Amino acid sequence: MTAKQVLVVCAVLCGYCFPARAHRTATEPPHDPIVRLAELEIDPAQLDNYKAALKEEIATSVRVEPGVLKLYAVSVKDHPNQIRMFEMYKDQASYQAHLKTSHFKQYKAKTQKMVRALTLIETEPILLGSQSR
Amino acid sequence: MTAKQVLVVCAVLCGYCFPARAHRTATEPPHDPIVRLAELEIDPAQLDNYKAALKEEIATSVRVEPGVLKLYAVSVKDHPNQIRMFEMYKDQASYQAHLKTSHFKQYKAKTQKMVRALTLIETEPILLGSQSR
Repeated sequence: MTAKQVLVVCAVLCGYCFPARAHRTATEPPHDPIVRLAELEIDPAQLDNYKAALKEEIATSVRVEPGVLKLYAVSVKDHPNQIRMFEMYKDQASYQAHLKTSHFKQYKAKTQKMVRALTLIETEPILLGSQSR
Repeated sequence: MTAKQVLVVCAVLCGYCFPARAHRTATEPPHDPIVRLAELEIDPAQLDNYKAALKEEIATSVRVEPGVLKLYAVSVKDHPNQIRMFEMYKDQASYQAHLKTSHFKQYKAKTQKMVRALTLIETEPILLGSQSR
């Protein structure tokens, strides 16, 4: 392999690398994401089981669904059975597709009797500021 | 420059590239971020001015403060003066430092009479699932 050939190979490799990083900064968040909030009250006796099911659902969704951008789950401090979700999807189609996945349906079926109250809140994004460093 | 020398230079370049991407995936979100929620009700007559001030504060914070990871602002659908914030900071020190910045203080002073009600909610993260592609 000549120096020129090696250089071409490396240029291709670096071309793969650098645009990927630039792309990432530019597209986080994308232009028209769907943001939804959820407020849940969980049966305290089933909280550990609920959290295990929720974690599994979140981990699977962001791993296998490119349109599921963020699924942030937190509990209110000192009220561990009050759960708040911040959900960001690439677009409406991604959200609708998410609802039809087997992992989401399994999560809903498994947790149905653990959830005492569920409030879903549709939103209009104002600004989704994200650290790009 | 010999082929070997070119290869070394490119290997260094790629070494810079690939670990950076791996690092990013592994540290988003970081291990112990602080997540806070805020619920605001804004005087409808001052909503446009409020949103302008909020956008400026968010854009400045994520640009100049490495410890401010996410400042997501949305309004509740069909209730544009009900604002919800999802805030993620690298750690407690980053959050405390944020409160002391001039841009945050200016935002608070400027919007003081626009905000009718403010509820701050401390949280415990359960799982902060994020798309890494």
